[in-house]
Amino acid sequence: MNNKPLILISNDDGITAPGIRVLVDCMKKLGTVVVVAPDSPQSGMGHAITINESLRLDESDYFGPDVLAYQCSGTPADCVKLALDKVLDRKPDLLVSGINHGSNSSVNVIYSGTMSAAMEGAIDGLQAIGFSLLDYSLDADFTTAAEVVSKVAAKVLDKKLPSDCLLNVNIPKVPLSELKGIKICRQAKAKWVEKFDEREDPYGRKYFWLTGEFVNMDNGEDTDEWALKHGYASVVPVQFDLTAHHVIGNLNSWNLNE
Amino acid sequence: MNNKPLILISNDDGITAPGIRVLVDCMKKLGTVVVVAPDSPQSGMGHAITINESLRLDESDYFGPDVLAYQCSGTPADCVKLALDKVLDRKPDLLVSGINHGSNSSVNVIYSGTMSAAMEGAIDGLQAIGFSLLDYSLDADFTTAAEVVSKVAAKVLDKKLPSDCLLNVNIPKVPLSELKGIKICRQAKAKWVEKFDEREDPYGRKYFWLTGEFVNMDNGEDTDEWALKHGYASVVPVQFDLTAHHVIGNLNSWNLNE
Repeated sequence: MNNKPLILISNDDGITAPGIRVLVDCMKKLGTVVVVAPDSPQSGMGHAITINESLRLDESDYFGPDVLAYQCSGTPADCVKLALDKVLDRKPDLLVSGINHGSNSSVNVIYSGTMSAAMEGAIDGLQAIGFSLLDYSLDADFTTAAEVVSKVAAKVLDKKLPSDCLLNVNIPKVPLSELKGIKICRQAKAKWVEKFDEREDPYGRKYFWLTGEFVNMDNGEDTDEWALKHGYASVVPVQFDLTAHHVIGNLNSWNLNE
Repeated sequence: MNNKPLILISNDDGITAPGIRVLVDCMKKLGTVVVVAPDSPQSGMGHAITINESLRLDESDYFGPDVLAYQCSGTPADCVKLALDKVLDRKPDLLVSGINHGSNSSVNVIYSGTMSAAMEGAIDGLQAIGFSLLDYSLDADFTTAAEVVSKVAAKVLDKKLPSDCLLNVNIPKVPLSELKGIKICRQAKAKWVEKFDEREDPYGRKYFWLTGEFVNMDNGEDTDEWALKHGYASVVPVQFDLTAHHVIGNLNSWNLNE
């Protein structure tokens, strides 16, 4: 009988991304690892699920003989749904997603495939964490990230999150010696200002590439943006009840039934 | 000089879906309408954005000569981003999305392309509403929905929502004479229990279709699920700050830096 924690791993950069390999190595020290990850990059997929196409799920030996791994043709949320229904024979003790190549801080949580995998698990009652490193490059140095990942995951396994939330963990691009610590934060108020790059194809038809500028509108020192800018890893507890409870009273005063 | 409100319309069922035509007809009575909608159905796309492909945006005469309309190759969130950057010459007074063919109540808000279009606008500071009818069929009767849509949209134009929220409006499948009213609600605690349908292709390889059962775990009489079941249209104020503020104190007591 195996009493080690069962840890499910997914991501949105795809099963061959360096970040998920680091995550697997960290989690192997904490429990029995099972990977179900997309077979191709899914960045920016938000909380998409696949309902108009069928899905493939194929076993993979990518992480060696001691890690059960599957690659899936769907989105990160699809991966978690398939893992829970078709791969695992019991509820995992922890779901971790990442390590994403690039930030999922602030409003990026909304667009994040990494976080959607974690949120899918949390909705289903799992302990869940999404990890992201503020470095897009494929040969990013994950040393600092690995330290933070191991610490936060071990703590969640020990302490347990409330059932109505998950964690969004972002790690700054700094050497481990310069990491100031791990800081519990709120999501900064920020947005992307779109600037589409307009081009013309060889046939004279216009097309567009999405680009944009990230604008932080929040001066608070308790935000994830502040923490990351000042050398801390940020940990934001995230909820999936999106109700703006504080607005309900106001709306009731509108008398919508008049 | 045109002083009528400028109203941007999008959806996730695509520009040819009956639901968006009803929405256009309702909004034409309230202001000047501009449509930017996907050129094909995008249900279940969550808050996906297109970052690895370019986007097409083509003018459409689908709604006749008095409605400026575009079809876009991207997701609902892409449509709103393109509309704000490339189509409109000023900020719209209102963004409406839908009318979706099928429910976006409760936890469905997370997977909803309809709501992602509205949320994209709200993040950018717009007044925004997503509308959904609890009827998947293409020949659904939108009479009741049209009544609710017109009432809620007019009220939002008049009263204005706080800048940190948008509305998720769902309409039950009942004749107008049986509609009990419009009810301000919170998002019910619910989830989908996955049941993947497993099949074998002609070459002996397995593939999967996502199906599932919606499970409402919430007995509250102040939820959207309760309202819809009892013949009310539900209005949930939705926020895009996902921080679980009530958990921050608890997490700080974990001493993650030890």
